[in-house]
Order: sequence, then C-alpha cells, then structure tokens
Amino acid sequence: MRVITLPHPPVIVGHAAVVGKKEREGPLGADFDLHDETDTFGMNTWERSESEMQRLAVNLALAKAGLGEAHPDAIFAGDLLNQCIGSAYGLESFHKPFFGLYGACSTFALSTMLASMAISAGYFKTCAAVSSSHFCSAEKQFRFPLEYGGQRAPTAQWTATAAGALILADQGDGPRITEVLPGRIVDGGIKDMSNMGAAMAPAAIDTLRAYFEETERRPSDFDLILTGDLGREGMSITTELMREMGIDLGDGYNDCGMMLYDSSKQDTHCGGSGCGCSACVVSGHVLRRFAAGELHDVLFAATGALMSPDSVKQGSSIPAIAHLVRIQSGNH
Amino acid sequence: MRVITLPHPPVIVGHAAVVGKKEREGPLGADFDLHDETDTFGMNTWERSESEMQRLAVNLALAKAGLGEAHPDAIFAGDLLNQCIGSAYGLESFHKPFFGLYGACSTFALSTMLASMAISAGYFKTCAAVSSSHFCSAEKQFRFPLEYGGQRAPTAQWTATAAGALILADQGDGPRITEVLPGRIVDGGIKDMSNMGAAMAPAAIDTLRAYFEETERRPSDFDLILTGDLGREGMSITTELMREMGIDLGDGYNDCGMMLYDSSKQDTHCGGSGCGCSACVVSGHVLRRFAAGELHDVLFAATGALMSPDSVKQGSSIPAIAHLVRIQSGNH
Repeated sequence: MRVITLPHPPVIVGHAAVVGKKEREGPLGADFDLHDETDTFGMNTWERSESEMQRLAVNLALAKAGLGEAHPDAIFAGDLLNQCIGSAYGLESFHKPFFGLYGACSTFALSTMLASMAISAGYFKTCAAVSSSHFCSAEKQFRFPLEYGGQRAPTAQWTATAAGALILADQGDGPRITEVLPGRIVDGGIKDMSNMGAAMAPAAIDTLRAYFEETERRPSDFDLILTGDLGREGMSITTELMREMGIDLGDGYNDCGMMLYDSSKQDTHCGGSGCGCSACVVSGHVLRRFAAGELHDVLFAATGALMSPDSVKQGSSIPAIAHLVRIQSGNH
Repeated sequence: MRVITLPHPPVIVGHAAVVGKKEREGPLGADFDLHDETDTFGMNTWERSESEMQRLAVNLALAKAGLGEAHPDAIFAGDLLNQCIGSAYGLESFHKPFFGLYGACSTFALSTMLASMAISAGYFKTCAAVSSSHFCSAEKQFRFPLEYGGQRAPTAQWTATAAGALILADQGDGPRITEVLPGRIVDGGIKDMSNMGAAMAPAAIDTLRAYFEETERRPSDFDLILTGDLGREGMSITTELMREMGIDLGDGYNDCGMMLYDSSKQDTHCGGSGCGCSACVVSGHVLRRFAAGELHDVLFAATGALMSPDSVKQGSSIPAIAHLVRIQSGNH
C-alpha cells in the first residue's frame, strides 16, 4: 500500500499566499494575501526577492492562525533554486528546526506531506510547510537571462512568482490532511526542457492511479482533483491516459498551472509552473474555497520534474515525481 | 524540547559505503564496501558517476541486509548537485516512494533522521537513507573547472567522492536510532566560500549545546561524538567555543572530515567535506565499529552550509545547519 492514512490528521490552522504582479492580475488574483507590483519585495536580487516571499508567507500564515513567535515547532520547506537558497535565506530568521526538501514543482505537496506525517506521529504540535518560485530567478537559472528576450516554445510554462505557506497543527479548526501518498520517480523518456507537462504527466498518472486503485474510490467522490503544475499539455495527456486505464477524472479535475493565469490574455503559453504555483493556488484559492464551504474533499497531487539544466544538456531524459495529499473539511 | 526520543527506535539492518580512489587510500579505506580507481563508476559524466555511487550503495546495503527487490518501502535521499540530480537519477531504478531532501553536507543525517521518524511512527517498515558527493561534480559546480588547476586556500576542504546508504527497519538486529534533533539555520556571518568550517561551526554548536542542555547528559557519556564535516578549522572552533560554554567535548570527539583522509600525505588541507563524507564514514567505518563491539553509543551531528555560489557572489553570508542522530547498539 502506498496510501498512508494519517492516524491523527493535522489541521490547517493558517495559510497564506504571496504573489507577484502577473499572478495578482490573473483569475485567482483576489484570493492572494499579498502581492508586490514590482516583483522585488524590496530586495536587490531576484533570489532575495524569492526568499522574502517565503518569509512573508510564513509570517502571514502564522498571523492568520493567531500564533506568535513561539511557533511553529518546525519548518518543512524547499524551492527550485540551486542549493535551495530561497528557503535557507528566507526562513533563517524564524530560527526553528528546519527540514530542507527538494521535489522541484512538487515541493509544496512534499513539505505538506512530511509536516503532516510528523504532526500526526506526535513529533511536533505545529509545523509550517512552505515553498516558492520566482519567474526572474528561475528564468536566469533554468533558461536564459531575462535581457536576452528568448522565444518561448508553445509547450513552455510560465514560472510563477509566488510563495505559499500552511500552518499545520495537532488541533484546531479547519480542513485536515487525512491521507498522503508519496510519489515514485517516473521517467517517460522526455528530453525537451520546454515540455515539462509531458515529462511530468507519467508521474501524475502513477500517483493518481495508485490512489484510486488502492482506495477503490472514484474521481467523482471528490469535489476537486488538482494536479500542479502540468499545464495544458500535461493535463491533456494525463486526462487521456487515465481514461484509457478506465479512470475518468471528469469535470472535477483541474491543474494549478491552468488556474493561475488567463492564458488567452497573459501570454503564459501552457500555463503556470514552479514550486510557487501550486503553493499559492492551494494556500490562497483552494483553502479560501474550503473556508467558504465550497470545497469539502480535495485530492492535491503536485508534480515535479527532477532534472537539472546540466542533466538535460548531457542528454538525460527528465525524471518526474508526483506527491499526493488529501485535504478534507473538518466535519469529515 | 528539540530532542525527539523515538518511541520505536528503528534498527540499522544494512549499511554500505561506496568511495573513490583517494578515499580508498585514506586511513579508513579498508572499511568501505566498494571503490573505483577511476572515480567514474563506468559513467561518462561526473554527475552520472555520482548517481551510480548512490545506486550501488543502496544495492549493497540491501544485499547486506538480506533484503530483496521488494524493499525498501521508501527512500530518503539528497546530494549537493543543482536540483539534487545525484539522487533523482541514481535512485529512479528502485521505483519506490521517494522523499527528496536538501541539507548540503548535513543531508545524510537529515535523511537518516526523517527515515527513522517515519519508521518509528509506523508509516514504513523499511527505508533507505542515502547521500553522496563527488569531487569532480562538486568542483565544477561550486569552484573551478578541474582543468583550470586553481589554488586551494589553506582553510579549504576536499569534497569526498563517496556515497553512503543505510537500510532502516522496524525490527531486526543491529544498532538503533534512538533520538534525533533537527537543526536550526544559524548564520555566523562568514562570507568565505573557502572556509566552510568556520561557517558551519556555529550550527554544530547550536545543535550540540541544545542536546547536552536538554538531556543533561555529558560528552563523556558517549563513546564517540561525531560532527561532519567541519574539518580542522571548524572542529577547533567548535571545541573551543563549546569549552567556553562549559561543555568539554573531550577525547571522544571527532569529525568525519578529519577522519576520511590523512591530510599530511593526501593534500586535503582542512579535511574532507561533501554529503558523501559523513555518509561513508558512518555507513562504512562507524557501523563496522558497532558490529565489532567497539562502539555502543554515538552522537552524529552532520553539518551543512546552505549557501549557493550565487548567494555568495551576491554578498550574502553563509547560513548553516546541523542535524543530530543518536546511534545506540542493540542491547541499549
């Protein structure tokens, strides 16, 4: 069995999303707690801007949870930057036990999963789960210098300038993380760095298929099934291949990368990506819909592509992973 | 309390260390399970060589534990390479639930800690904890191209070409992980990339001090207190500052970076470093001494420097972290 049913499901007592200008202008803009029209967040490097988004997201989430400086007991965090400096510099001022993670764009589900497992086991009473990405720090590291103005492929996604943070606790009111399913590394043989959706779809399918087969539940049992961030290309591959396997994801299926931007107006090609994309969609939009009573039971399967620019230049294909968490409203 | 006493201490049922030529020629050479005189491990890039070391280490550790392909239930792993590709490509063939971690040179303690917490909580029956580094992949990424032949500073350390793997299980014979203490990010203001020992010492002190103060134990209660990898500079800072705080680490204190090479003959300056250094010293040397009945109770506090080449070039100081695990022989 790959599904882990948490014996003492932790409660999401606080959540916050911090985003850049483009994300604020997108369809979910009103759901985010804080944005900066300049994308700098007052810092003089893009890496520091990304770190500052993480710091702000945790601070806001703690404040919304009504928790002070004594919290959280531990932080689980990661990001896309080399050596994960977004998290290290962004979260050092909290001076709390720190678990550094790397799951590429799946990191927000990875951090939420491990924090939930640790709380359910009684190791901690409160944990923060955090992740971020920044368009400008990601472009220079993974693709081209911004000033170069490189052309983007039709299958390319747009790295979100965003951070999301959850505060999870062993008690309180709010939605709970009831089940988790850690992903396996799946390599579908894709070598195109501009088509992450195709590279990550096999991992999403591996995880979703395992979940539905093991639990014998159906997609229609959930209000929302959310992948992040497959984008248009990956979402259509996932939908089609799952249907061939006899699992119709149906109208309740969506993808964080497809929700964050209006691709018809915002020039984001196949949609959003980056650790911050699913982090802000879940921490901002999805949990607000829980609070409004519009959602009660959500499967969130975040996907990550585990290559580096070096591994792709060396001719390796792109391995991917998808970690799943189930979020249920408190009355379940 | 930062110390977590594991309710069901997992057993180290298998362990293996895979190293390069220089590590095989060092004082601990005979303790390692496998080495390659060419450092390539049959691969055509240094990154792939590092991945292959991880794969071999897990395979050997599983074989030594007498476990087959059905194991482990999950893998906790990380490395120093951008986007942690050492782990992603090295471990994908196991096709098991995978938790990607980043703790720089503290990663082996981080992976061991999280795997132990997960087993003790009953989430898994067997887990692998893995980490690696490779001199050649690290030099090109963090310092200079090998061909350049750059001068090394006297305080510089030598990135180990090594991987280590533990197989942890909920039952069996062998030493156990009885306590863990997750580190906090500590920034002592050091900006010199060639003096990691000084950058990491404050983190080692923060963790060791918390351990001794919370447990009211003394360094003399342990057969061995092991940091990794402070090297000569960081070890002397740690010893001196701990003594000023009233904690004499004594003769039972050593550092993985000081143990791996003979610095008088092997031109390694301040000693070894890299995720693989403490991974191979613990997986090879320390656990063999447990098996021989020479060690019964060891504190292992691995240290990591959480900067990136970019953050240092941008003028940021180097944050560090130290994660601690306590290893006790089975009869405790």
